[in-house]
Amino acid sequence: MVVASVDNLADERSKAQFDVGAMKIVWAGSKHVFDVTDRMARIVASDPVRVRKDNRTTLGRKELFKNTLRKMAHVVKRANELRLTEEEASKLRFFVDEPGYLDLHWVWNVCTGYKRSGTEEQQEKWLPLASRMEIIGCYAQTELGHGSNVQGLETTATFDPKLMNLSFIWWPGGLGKVSTHAVVYARLVSGGQEHGIYGFIVQLRSLDDHTPLGIIIGDIGTKFGSGAYNTMDNGFVCFNRVRIPRNHMLMRNERGNVCLSDVPKQMVYGTMVYVRQTIVSDASWALSRAVCIAVRYSAIRRQFGSQDGGIETQVLDYETQQSRLFPLLASAYAFRFVGEWLKWLYADVTERLQANDFSTLPEAHACTAGLKSLTTSVTADAIEECRKLCGGHGYLCSSGLPELFAVYVPACTYEGDNVVLLLQVSCQDCFSTGCWEKPVGTTTYMGNAEHLMQCKSSASSPEDWLKPSVVLEAFEARAFRLAVACARDISKFSTPEAGFAELSIDLVEAAIAHCEVIVVSSLVMWIFQVHREGSAGHSGDGVKEQLQILCFIYALHLIHKHSGEFLSTGCITPEQATLANEQLRTLYGQIKNVPMLTRGSGFMAGSSKCSLLVDAFNYTDHYLGSALGRYDGNVYATLYAQALRDPSMTRWYLMDTRSSFDQF
Amino acid sequence: MVVASVDNLADERSKAQFDVGAMKIVWAGSKHVFDVTDRMARIVASDPVRVRKDNRTTLGRKELFKNTLRKMAHVVKRANELRLTEEEASKLRFFVDEPGYLDLHWVWNVCTGYKRSGTEEQQEKWLPLASRMEIIGCYAQTELGHGSNVQGLETTATFDPKLMNLSFIWWPGGLGKVSTHAVVYARLVSGGQEHGIYGFIVQLRSLDDHTPLGIIIGDIGTKFGSGAYNTMDNGFVCFNRVRIPRNHMLMRNERGNVCLSDVPKQMVYGTMVYVRQTIVSDASWALSRAVCIAVRYSAIRRQFGSQDGGIETQVLDYETQQSRLFPLLASAYAFRFVGEWLKWLYADVTERLQANDFSTLPEAHACTAGLKSLTTSVTADAIEECRKLCGGHGYLCSSGLPELFAVYVPACTYEGDNVVLLLQVSCQDCFSTGCWEKPVGTTTYMGNAEHLMQCKSSASSPEDWLKPSVVLEAFEARAFRLAVACARDISKFSTPEAGFAELSIDLVEAAIAHCEVIVVSSLVMWIFQVHREGSAGHSGDGVKEQLQILCFIYALHLIHKHSGEFLSTGCITPEQATLANEQLRTLYGQIKNVPMLTRGSGFMAGSSKCSLLVDAFNYTDHYLGSALGRYDGNVYATLYAQALRDPSMTRWYLMDTRSSFDQF
Repeated sequence: MVVASVDNLADERSKAQFDVGAMKIVWAGSKHVFDVTDRMARIVASDPVRVRKDNRTTLGRKELFKNTLRKMAHVVKRANELRLTEEEASKLRFFVDEPGYLDLHWVWNVCTGYKRSGTEEQQEKWLPLASRMEIIGCYAQTELGHGSNVQGLETTATFDPKLMNLSFIWWPGGLGKVSTHAVVYARLVSGGQEHGIYGFIVQLRSLDDHTPLGIIIGDIGTKFGSGAYNTMDNGFVCFNRVRIPRNHMLMRNERGNVCLSDVPKQMVYGTMVYVRQTIVSDASWALSRAVCIAVRYSAIRRQFGSQDGGIETQVLDYETQQSRLFPLLASAYAFRFVGEWLKWLYADVTERLQANDFSTLPEAHACTAGLKSLTTSVTADAIEECRKLCGGHGYLCSSGLPELFAVYVPACTYEGDNVVLLLQVSCQDCFSTGCWEKPVGTTTYMGNAEHLMQCKSSASSPEDWLKPSVVLEAFEARAFRLAVACARDISKFSTPEAGFAELSIDLVEAAIAHCEVIVVSSLVMWIFQVHREGSAGHSGDGVKEQLQILCFIYALHLIHKHSGEFLSTGCITPEQATLANEQLRTLYGQIKNVPMLTRGSGFMAGSSKCSLLVDAFNYTDHYLGSALGRYDGNVYATLYAQALRDPSMTRWYLMDTRSSFDQF
Repeated sequence: MVVASVDNLADERSKAQFDVGAMKIVWAGSKHVFDVTDRMARIVASDPVRVRKDNRTTLGRKELFKNTLRKMAHVVKRANELRLTEEEASKLRFFVDEPGYLDLHWVWNVCTGYKRSGTEEQQEKWLPLASRMEIIGCYAQTELGHGSNVQGLETTATFDPKLMNLSFIWWPGGLGKVSTHAVVYARLVSGGQEHGIYGFIVQLRSLDDHTPLGIIIGDIGTKFGSGAYNTMDNGFVCFNRVRIPRNHMLMRNERGNVCLSDVPKQMVYGTMVYVRQTIVSDASWALSRAVCIAVRYSAIRRQFGSQDGGIETQVLDYETQQSRLFPLLASAYAFRFVGEWLKWLYADVTERLQANDFSTLPEAHACTAGLKSLTTSVTADAIEECRKLCGGHGYLCSSGLPELFAVYVPACTYEGDNVVLLLQVSCQDCFSTGCWEKPVGTTTYMGNAEHLMQCKSSASSPEDWLKPSVVLEAFEARAFRLAVACARDISKFSTPEAGFAELSIDLVEAAIAHCEVIVVSSLVMWIFQVHREGSAGHSGDGVKEQLQILCFIYALHLIHKHSGEFLSTGCITPEQATLANEQLRTLYGQIKNVPMLTRGSGFMAGSSKCSLLVDAFNYTDHYLGSALGRYDGNVYATLYAQALRDPSMTRWYLMDTRSSFDQF
């Protein structure tokens, strides 16, 4: 048996060809964020007993959830003891790495539910209770038969007597076991008339003994994975003629109420832009985590290729491994920067809203919807791809990948199903707002219609595909031509709606093409032109060069993936597609150097750059939670140690097994 | 809240437009197989307590495994009571739907391990013990650092004294807790010389009290999912100077031994052909199960699209849903027929082997390797796609889909990693055996080299894409041109090996194209020409028509998916790709009829054909294990009932929750 010696990857790291410390700060976004993140990650990692993760997949649901209750209480206590700021506390919760009611209590109740919608009087009453955790809140909107279609809500509240009527709420996190209060959204009915959708504070459980208050309430059952989201008590509640005090109706705005369907669309869109930009950021975290595990284990693992019993080939040296893994590494970086750019976009939109400038909002809304869809779909698939890239051991929970997948995939569905969102993008960007006449923001390129319809790519060598202008032109022309084709086809139908329904498949493809323009162009802009030129982030030796390589890997792998669209729209020729592909493989070689023999370890090694590019994520072993992705590369001894910790190693099964045989 | 009335799908079924009973027999393969399968499925479904599945995801690993032990004992007992044949018993185990040591005991020890490799004396000793379950066996080959690379095994057995040396075996199912004996493969060393790889029977645990016999042995820990493969005790064992009696070495062949690396390659290939064709069959089972759930729930679920509070649109009516779901339905049927064809191929190969005719074996081996890779990769992705197509509720374990995914995905890795297998295909089919000069079996089309290099598709209308010859020519030309391009590029390298390594990405793409030719052509042949023309299977009203629609959906969706390859090789023009796409959408419309108002239910319905096409799988609700995929469509009431069964509905959490709050 080969058990890799400790610090198996140390040699590679000592040959650093770029400044990893500088890259860490680029990844974090700033020195300040890096410092906070690093400190919080270390605090969590130094507390292995209280925040233990590796036993989660062995527990039954009940024990698992008790465990979460203890952990959440510990986290709140620790944040208080250390007098953490909210920025710090949220990072601390992040690194505890367990979905729980706390996040929902925090985000929805404290921020969205009460602070934004409540009157001053309501805020004075509820905020202190919530922040002292004397009540636990959740946000209840989705119904059993309805997802995010707010306008289709069946829950009604009838005014005077204020009764909440026949409603079956399903899914809200924190509702199933823990929450004492919920903000429930319902259609207000008064005198037989509908008055739009309002939020209501409803007490669910007694503050004395936690028993439900005249409602049927519970947990909706287990979800994908063994740990994953099973630490969260997604719940259901059935309201049937529940009486609510009048002052529990959330009613802050100039007219004395907050009817959800009445609020200026701009405000709703603003909130959506905020939530979805955080989802894009989360995508880069999840993707980079999976990529980190797969890159490190691919540098350790060896299979086949040995002649006469010699050392086998490092899996990372196989082209097929590189062509599957490196585009995902590049995507992690791409999504990270797009996430940062969206933060800027949100700040910009917010500033404009305060000045009553709504001009950029529809486009910003469509853009975040599309990027939410694009990044979460890619990330979900990529985590599973990383698992497969780890071979058989990726299937073990101790690889960390199965649970990462299970906990991540709902992002494709929540806050807008990914396909529905793409339809919104195409609707917004291609057809309904005349954006070709008045293009703004990310649709600016569409103003260049004549050129984009006629241009032919000038690429005549692999190196030409390293010119940002050549790459961008190809992406823009493809997206624009697909959009124009959709518009042309839709115009043949009697109504736009009919065409829209019949051509929705094409619209989705056009929307993806448009979103990829946004990612590629913001990436190019970020790395080549605007942000932080010469600043701390980029000043590290070789950092910018690595980012450029990743940027082109990202763009060129998409040209290969969607070559059918680039070719059929005539944006590039088959020969140019081949050149792009050649350049892509050259770039793979640049982040995976030629193997060389290293001292001491007896291993062939040379995966320096890609190993360093994942080191730059600065993840602790606790956060990664993976025997395969350990920083020191000591994979096999760790797998063994984890197996020995399995509770089934106890001897209970001796008697059980024999007695089950006796039944034969 | 809408709770669908019972028999929600009955109206649709009453409008059957083809003979579903006949289709069931087509799906099963024959009337006999249908009868056995149907009877065994009903036996299992009628025994809900002993074979309960819905609580698996709530149990901790230890309770889960105890549960499996009881279930396996019950299955063996039941098969004995009912005096089932082995054909029946294996179906019974299949419908119990829980991975367990029994399958491995059965397949490997009884069939492969002892029967094939043991001497007569060894068979007389071991077979009765194994068939009476007095010993439980497993098959131990994969090492911690090695997967299926048999030639790289590190386990050695030194002759006289016969010692099994320093070996760390990892993964075998049944090894972790249950097996008393293993067949271990090791390199035999004698007098300092290596003598190839042999199998050895090693006793692992005492037959009295099940304690390990001087070895370190245990379970490798939890795997993906909460139920899934965690009912299997995949294990590890460490042999260090273990002594084995000489007559425990498996040694049946003419020279008195069975050295694995010495066995004619033909025999090894023959076994691989067998194992991999069963994996292809399994793919169609798993895929059809997921598709059945997604089709039924898409017919029940409604979202958006209502004007003025009316009924919302059936999700199945959305083109985006159809374009994601129907190709998977078509793939399930395609894989089913390919699996049947592979059974025929295996029978043919076996017959030839017995007559010492090895001529078709390499090609049959490559073909099954490729189809194993193709079908398992598509199925794994498709299960997750079906889960997403069910919206949020697909994330609940009660949908059946998360566990189906978790239990299925290892098929992409075991019995040959899917990417490694594709490289073998391309090696075999494109380059090394001169198959262009002497094409056999599935490579026959490559003999038509000149035509395939020059032909241009004649499709000039959407209807032309319903001509088998037009479709097949496009697939064959694409596959052949990709293979020729690879061969040309490889010839530029100094050695074929160097070229092979550098171009492996292209080789994988060429191999997939070749495998798709096999699937499309065997499907076309099966439906249009040879098999069962006029026989019971096809004589049902409309059955053949449905199969033709599915066949073209399968082929045309691949042309769209890989349009980059079809276009860049000049096999079709962009205009022809558009025509194929138009035809594809027309076909979608043919299995999803125009909605019409049905009596009674108050629902719009019309998804008749696709609902019937999944009814033809003949799955019981027990086997499907899905609230969303119920035969009667009574989805929401079932979800609620399942939630109420969750053990966390008990009141334990009241006190726990309060006491955890008190720590704040």
